[in-house]
Amino acid sequence: DFAKIDHHRQLRTGFPEVIWSQGKTPEQIIQIMNAMRSQGTPLIMTTRLESDIAEIVSLGVPDLRYYPLAKIGAIGKIEQKYQGKISILTAGTADLPVAQEAAITAELCGFEVERLWDVGVAGIHRLLNHRHIIDNADVLIVVAGMEGALPSVVAGMAPCPVIAVPTSIGYGTSFGGVAPLLTMLNSCATGMGVVNIDNGFGAAMLAGQILRL
Amino acid sequence: DFAKIDHHRQLRTGFPEVIWSQGKTPEQIIQIMNAMRSQGTPLIMTTRLESDIAEIVSLGVPDLRYYPLAKIGAIGKIEQKYQGKISILTAGTADLPVAQEAAITAELCGFEVERLWDVGVAGIHRLLNHRHIIDNADVLIVVAGMEGALPSVVAGMAPCPVIAVPTSIGYGTSFGGVAPLLTMLNSCATGMGVVNIDNGFGAAMLAGQILRL
Amino acid sequence: DFAKIDHHRQLRTGFPEVIWSQGKTPEQIIQIMNAMRSQGTPLIMTTRLESDIAEIVSLGVPDLRYYPLAKIGAIGKIEQKYQGKISILTAGTADLPVAQEAAITAELCGFEVERLWDVGVAGIHRLLNHRHIIDNADVLIVVAGMEGALPSVVAGMAPCPVIAVPTSIGYGTSFGGVAPLLTMLNSCATGMGVVNIDNGFGAAMLAGQILRL
Amino acid sequence: DFAKIDHHRQLRTGFPEVIWSQGKTPEQIIQIMNAMRSQGTPLIMTTRLESDIAEIVSLGVPDLRYYPLAKIGAIGKIEQKYQGKISILTAGTADLPVAQEAAITAELCGFEVERLWDVGVAGIHRLLNHRHIIDNADVLIVVAGMEGALPSVVAGMAPCPVIAVPTSIGYGTSFGGVAPLLTMLNSCATGMGVVNIDNGFGAAMLAGQILRL
Amino acid sequence: DFAKIDHHRQLRTGFPEVIWSQGKTPEQIIQIMNAMRSQGTPLIMTTRLESDIAEIVSLGVPDLRYYPLAKIGAIGKIEQKYQGKISILTAGTADLPVAQEAAITAELCGFEVERLWDVGVAGIHRLLNHRHIIDNADVLIVVAGMEGALPSVVAGMAPCPVIAVPTSIGYGTSFGGVAPLLTMLNSCATGMGVVNIDNGFGAAMLAGQILRL
Amino acid sequence: DFAKIDHHRQLRTGFPEVIWSQGKTPEQIIQIMNAMRSQGTPLIMTTRLESDIAEIVSLGVPDLRYYPLAKIGAIGKIEQKYQGKISILTAGTADLPVAQEAAITAELCGFEVERLWDVGVAGIHRLLNHRHIIDNADVLIVVAGMEGALPSVVAGMAPCPVIAVPTSIGYGTSFGGVAPLLTMLNSCATGMGVVNIDNGFGAAMLAGQILRL
Amino acid sequence: DFAKIDHHRQLRTGFPEVIWSQGKTPEQIIQIMNAMRSQGTPLIMTTRLESDIAEIVSLGVPDLRYYPLAKIGAIGKIEQKYQGKISILTAGTADLPVAQEAAITAELCGFEVERLWDVGVAGIHRLLNHRHIIDNADVLIVVAGMEGALPSVVAGMAPCPVIAVPTSIGYGTSFGGVAPLLTMLNSCATGMGVVNIDNGFGAAMLAGQILRL
Amino acid sequence: DFAKIDHHRQLRTGFPEVIWSQGKTPEQIIQIMNAMRSQGTPLIMTTRLESDIAEIVSLGVPDLRYYPLAKIGAIGKIEQKYQGKISILTAGTADLPVAQEAAITAELCGFEVERLWDVGVAGIHRLLNHRHIIDNADVLIVVAGMEGALPSVVAGMAPCPVIAVPTSIGYGTSFGGVAPLLTMLNSCATGMGVVNIDNGFGAAMLAGQILRL
Ligand SMILES: Nc1ncnc2c1ncn2[C@@H]1O[C@H](COP(=O)(O)O)[C@@H](O)[C@H]1O
Ligand SMILES: Nc1ncnc2c1ncn2[C@@H]1O[C@H](COP(=O)(O)O)[C@@H](O)[C@H]1O
Ligand SMILES: Nc1ncnc2c1ncn2[C@@H]1O[C@H](COP(=O)(O)O)[C@@H](O)[C@H]1O
Ligand SMILES: Nc1ncnc2c1ncn2[C@@H]1O[C@H](COP(=O)(O)O)[C@@H](O)[C@H]1O
Ligand SMILES: [Mg+2]
Ligand SMILES: [Mg+2]
Ligand SMILES: [Mg+2]
Ligand SMILES: [Mg+2]
Ligand SMILES: [Mg+2]
Ligand SMILES: [Mg+2]
Ligand SMILES: [Mg+2]
Ligand SMILES: [Mg+2]
Repeated sequence: DFAKIDHHRQLRTGFPEVIWSQGKTPEQIIQIMNAMRSQGTPLIMTTRLESDIAEIVSLGVPDLRYYPLAKIGAIGKIEQKYQGKISILTAGTADLPVAQEAAITAELCGFEVERLWDVGVAGIHRLLNHRHIIDNADVLIVVAGMEGALPSVVAGMAPCPVIAVPTSIGYGTSFGGVAPLLTMLNSCATGMGVVNIDNGFGAAMLAGQILRL
Repeated sequence: DFAKIDHHRQLRTGFPEVIWSQGKTPEQIIQIMNAMRSQGTPLIMTTRLESDIAEIVSLGVPDLRYYPLAKIGAIGKIEQKYQGKISILTAGTADLPVAQEAAITAELCGFEVERLWDVGVAGIHRLLNHRHIIDNADVLIVVAGMEGALPSVVAGMAPCPVIAVPTSIGYGTSFGGVAPLLTMLNSCATGMGVVNIDNGFGAAMLAGQILRL
Repeated sequence: DFAKIDHHRQLRTGFPEVIWSQGKTPEQIIQIMNAMRSQGTPLIMTTRLESDIAEIVSLGVPDLRYYPLAKIGAIGKIEQKYQGKISILTAGTADLPVAQEAAITAELCGFEVERLWDVGVAGIHRLLNHRHIIDNADVLIVVAGMEGALPSVVAGMAPCPVIAVPTSIGYGTSFGGVAPLLTMLNSCATGMGVVNIDNGFGAAMLAGQILRL
Repeated sequence: DFAKIDHHRQLRTGFPEVIWSQGKTPEQIIQIMNAMRSQGTPLIMTTRLESDIAEIVSLGVPDLRYYPLAKIGAIGKIEQKYQGKISILTAGTADLPVAQEAAITAELCGFEVERLWDVGVAGIHRLLNHRHIIDNADVLIVVAGMEGALPSVVAGMAPCPVIAVPTSIGYGTSFGGVAPLLTMLNSCATGMGVVNIDNGFGAAMLAGQILRL
Repeated sequence: DFAKIDHHRQLRTGFPEVIWSQGKTPEQIIQIMNAMRSQGTPLIMTTRLESDIAEIVSLGVPDLRYYPLAKIGAIGKIEQKYQGKISILTAGTADLPVAQEAAITAELCGFEVERLWDVGVAGIHRLLNHRHIIDNADVLIVVAGMEGALPSVVAGMAPCPVIAVPTSIGYGTSFGGVAPLLTMLNSCATGMGVVNIDNGFGAAMLAGQILRL
Repeated sequence: DFAKIDHHRQLRTGFPEVIWSQGKTPEQIIQIMNAMRSQGTPLIMTTRLESDIAEIVSLGVPDLRYYPLAKIGAIGKIEQKYQGKISILTAGTADLPVAQEAAITAELCGFEVERLWDVGVAGIHRLLNHRHIIDNADVLIVVAGMEGALPSVVAGMAPCPVIAVPTSIGYGTSFGGVAPLLTMLNSCATGMGVVNIDNGFGAAMLAGQILRL
Repeated sequence: DFAKIDHHRQLRTGFPEVIWSQGKTPEQIIQIMNAMRSQGTPLIMTTRLESDIAEIVSLGVPDLRYYPLAKIGAIGKIEQKYQGKISILTAGTADLPVAQEAAITAELCGFEVERLWDVGVAGIHRLLNHRHIIDNADVLIVVAGMEGALPSVVAGMAPCPVIAVPTSIGYGTSFGGVAPLLTMLNSCATGMGVVNIDNGFGAAMLAGQILRL
Repeated sequence: DFAKIDHHRQLRTGFPEVIWSQGKTPEQIIQIMNAMRSQGTPLIMTTRLESDIAEIVSLGVPDLRYYPLAKIGAIGKIEQKYQGKISILTAGTADLPVAQEAAITAELCGFEVERLWDVGVAGIHRLLNHRHIIDNADVLIVVAGMEGALPSVVAGMAPCPVIAVPTSIGYGTSFGGVAPLLTMLNSCATGMGVVNIDNGFGAAMLAGQILRL
């Protein structure tokens, strides 16, 4: 009663509802997962699941797989295979957790994922050395904290849509990710859409919608 | 010398560079347009062109077409035809200038456009009455000011990517479009990417990249 | 001496003063509760009472009832029965603590409460399926975090006043509830009043004033 | 086609849709008014109508009544009479335009209005001298700019709901009305709901919903 | 060497330098205190001293007196007696720590202090019942969190300077004290000066300067 | 009726009510001035009076004196003479209008004023060359825009209260005076109170209250 | 008397005081210029001088040279020649006014200037094509609006200090230059210092100090 | 693979890449350090390394030197000696950690460092007593929290570039260092560049670039 699971979402939008763990008790998560399972949902997935909560949830959901870097818990997988791949880039090493949230989400939803980490603009040759990845991409997710300049440079080179993900990595005037968010919203390069700070999950879902077309 | 036109952009990204009129003199705009014309650029387009500036530019660019609501000036058109269409929705009548900037940009770039105006959430039946437009969309651009709630509702129903465009329409705590921008970035519906406030042009370019796939 | 209890408030405004626990020591809370009891206050209630503080307060106030989800402590109840009921909706499961603060407050003050949880706009059919609740409401409290779009949709359908409560549920650009607050203040639907972020208590008090008319 | 008028709104919510003039051309306003008239809407009303636009609209809508201080244009009136009255207070003289927007809206919708201007807290005796107005109110609209403290004091005395309206009157750190808005949202008095900065219209509509109960 | 104590400050400004504990190690505090003692400073005082740090400092400064509510540590006292008294008011019980920081500072500097707690505007009669305190004040310090309206009401009644101190008491849109700060800066009452959020110490020092005249 | 003049204010607080011109019509200003005159108010003063409005007001108030730099209009003067003087400093030449608003207000209220312009911290010797002014001050008003550092330096040297007035002079990150306001609120020098941005009037009123003691 | 010209500044810091025109009357500017001339100041320069004010100033200062794009007025020039040059880059054509303020300031102060306009990151090859300019620079001023990513890329390549200048060019979430300012402050490239939004003058003065070493 | 170390950075910009510890696991830091060592990088340095992480890193990097106040870990040192020295000033004792981050970075990079602590503007004579340090500086780093006024005063006296570093030391409206940041960006003194809040490392790198010229 505390949750009205949206069992039709996969029919309407192509992907099932995903459980956002923040603000839920382990008991609530277990009950929602089991309710979805009994409806035959192929992929039951929860995001932002801290490892200590994951352990408690596992007691009620023994087949739960847990991805610690991405903080995702999952049962099942979408078996359908889509054309094209999702290429995910990060500016720095510290952006990995967000990038992995995107990558695991995409893989669980049935997409092929290509990863390229730590190619931020302070050493632009690192990106130029991997130009073929951009040239051959179908859809790009570009994850960056601090000044968040990487998506602009990539979108200026890419022949495909770019999804920009600001991260909360930084300090001082990064304001928990506001600095890279503004950078991305004000990009003078085109073909870019922005998602919320640290929202790797949302970036993967948008990329998935694009490739499903 | 004051401008280094990016003549390769169409090759790299599929669409030619577009001239942003703000902060440029009419003389600069004329010179850039003529330089692009002499390179054979098929579509030469300038955005945010106020009508009084457009008149001066017309003196140096006699075949300039001017779209007053969208504040776009253009020469030529991209003749290639793409599969699929771009469906554009607005929450209110006052959001039309931004929506038209998206629509004209898309049409000039060779895309088919479908328009649905004034279906904001204060009378949700207006949207539900046009459900078939959402169900059959290939890519959606949803334009909204004030509280900007329309893209969330649409993305919860749509089987395709949604591009959300906040507008500066509103007053008081709308803060020139910050309120709808935050609404869109925090959406609990998935499959949505956000562009800058009033950036109808950017929304069309992202939609174009998606349909070019 | 550290507190001047407002013993006339019930006379003036219909409801007794309520103790806000934050920033008070357990000893102060106990003393205030006992002072109010000795004045014959029918309902002595304290909000935002953490469970560990509640335990200490219980030592000095043995008949204290504690509501853990709502973080309310109470002695007594207002016996008067009012006409009409207060209908409380939430957008998500994570908004429950705020909604329960409103619900318990309302019930302790003598009102009938109707609850409808997790009917956010990402799956709008969930709300439409419960349309009769809106159609038959006397006063509505609508609680939502993240983008906070639910009150707008509800106010566009409701024949009665809507009290909108933004919650701090969300992350990144939700800015601790600022995003849904702005959504609610900028609503293009009418008949809505807004209270502070997470202020379920205040929403109930306003609903109570409305039904007392 | 540029507007989907919500002809059912009066049925659903008790009051017809109202036209927001900002961002609309005079021609659009005329067309919408005439379309509503042909549907038999009893009160056709437009807010935030500047006097120069009102003159142009009058050419196409000869029976338009214009209220310059409130910036409202109207045809017709709701004839139904409701029980109770709406009492409107301002802190200063400069808050009058917002207070009048509320007062005229309420009167056009069929409500009796009581006005009390310039009783701000810098001279608290002015308010105390009119205590009977507060004691006998059914619903109060309290309009204040600058520090916006008046609603708190009133809500602490009133036996009925208080609707607080912050205004953009002030300078420096008033930030166009943000200062009084925050004051009102953080009030330690209860029974208060807040609307957007300068939103006299919205305050009247909420007061109307409350009295319709 | 890590500190250049300002031994002349008492000569220049009437009061000795005071040690701000935040960001200093206990060892640094001990060394500064002992250096000041060896210069014969009559009052050696440190603010924002957490109780655990105070205990360590006591090991090196055995005659340290610690005031836990005010978080002040002190050696000695200014013996000079000034004319007039400093009257300190709070809006709520939760504002006590800040008010006590002001009160203890003032008393250590040689001033007489009068205290009036919990007379906030939600029950304005509590203030009016103590009107004689305002009427007979020499200088007033008014401490308030949440909406911070008390100083405006007091300054409208007082025949003397009012020092307004916003506190971080509140939640949601109080933004750690920004809401009451803005209230105080935008006051339409005159004769008021504002200090930083939670800065009881600074308020006392300003009051002291005023009474020293 | 649109204004409830606070005729007792001089009795309560020592100074009569002053008319804030912003948001008032010339007719309203004339009526209020004449009403105050008929009550025998010795000084009738209005601030923020633009020169074009002043001319219209003069038609109804022929003996109005207008001070264009300070934007003050006045009739009469407070004849009482107070002990001590008010010393007013500015950081730059561009801060003069605000400083003059303070100076004229103070002189009209009966105080002696000493002026020292353009002694900002970028050339600190300019201030040090006038050290005697600080050393002999009774109360100081220090006006500064841009980074607003002057009050901190002055308060570190002064044997009396310092009233800090931030101005909106600056550009970019000065944010209309927010930068100097924050500088002043965070001063590590003591004995300072802050007023609203550009509020020369309020600074003078506070200085007046201090000298009246 | 309204201005205390800092005649020693050139001695102390190497460059004379410069007159900031904003907030000064033409008469004040004329008087300050003439006072500086009578002291033998070699370069008398004023910034942010609008063309209509410049014309009035010319009446009192007939040998004033006016640079309209840079909005600088000047008499004389610093004849000393310094080693090294100042290289100035812009991201777009619209950033020219700010870049020219820097360039003209630098040239008037005796420095050689190299200009490279419109090499923003949306077409990164434009920058890479001019790599030799970066490789051979002594000090770089990089001017950018919108997302302001250019300085990060340049600082990652440059063997010398980079001065980053955010401009107010942009719209929506650029917030008048805040977006590029944050980008520059959060840069993960090193060797960069930032100045105020649109402060081309300040960038040139810092570059000058660096080359004077 | 999670890190693409920029081994050419020293060649391009004069200094090797530095490892930012935040958001990295100890294992990642160890691997990056060892990879850099195997490339022969002369100085391998990591910033913002908490002491507990440093201990774990030491297990894999036994010759790691740890500087606890500066939170820097390092192997090796740049042996080249540069002309000139870097003079570092702080306003208060609490700014030491940031100043030490700058000092240690500079020394590890081969520069001579001069330190002057606790000379903030509240006791300006402390700075004036050390005037020779400013007069003889080659490049100055000025570190200040709270109101951050020190760099303005220093830049008005100094014959060399000033690098201003705002710190997060303060409370209330210091907003984690935003107040001193704004002070520094709006300085009316010239020859100053600003870095991110608490970015002592970045200040040293900029100073290094300046002295390398
Ligand atoms: N990491 C995430 N970020 C944003 N939205 C999410 C995330 N994970 C799940 N959601 C969405 O949040 C909604 C569930 O909210 P709730 O009802 O509170 O579980 C679903 O519509 C999901 O699509
Ligand atoms: N002054 C106003 N403030 C806020 N909302 C308004 C105002 N006037 C009309 N509205 C609402 O704005 C909506 C109309 O928006 P639009 O479709 O752009 O005309 C209607 O739902 C009205 O209820
Ligand atoms: N465009 C500018 N931006 C920032 N500061 C400036 C500018 N032009 C001049 N200044 C400085 O502003 C100060 C002059 O301020 P004022 O006394 O008001 O003329 C001088 O110290 C100049 O160095
Ligand atoms: N304390 C610091 N503040 C800002 N940037 C830093 C700091 N320490 C290292 N860096 C830079 O951060 C980048 C490394 O980021 P990452 O790839 O995440 O290790 C390098 O370009 C360094 O120059
Ligand atoms: Mg890296
Ligand atoms: Mg509409
Ligand atoms: Mg849910
Ligand atoms: Mg008044
Ligand atoms: Mg209380
Ligand atoms: Mg000056
Ligand atoms: Mg360009
Ligand atoms: Mg110190």
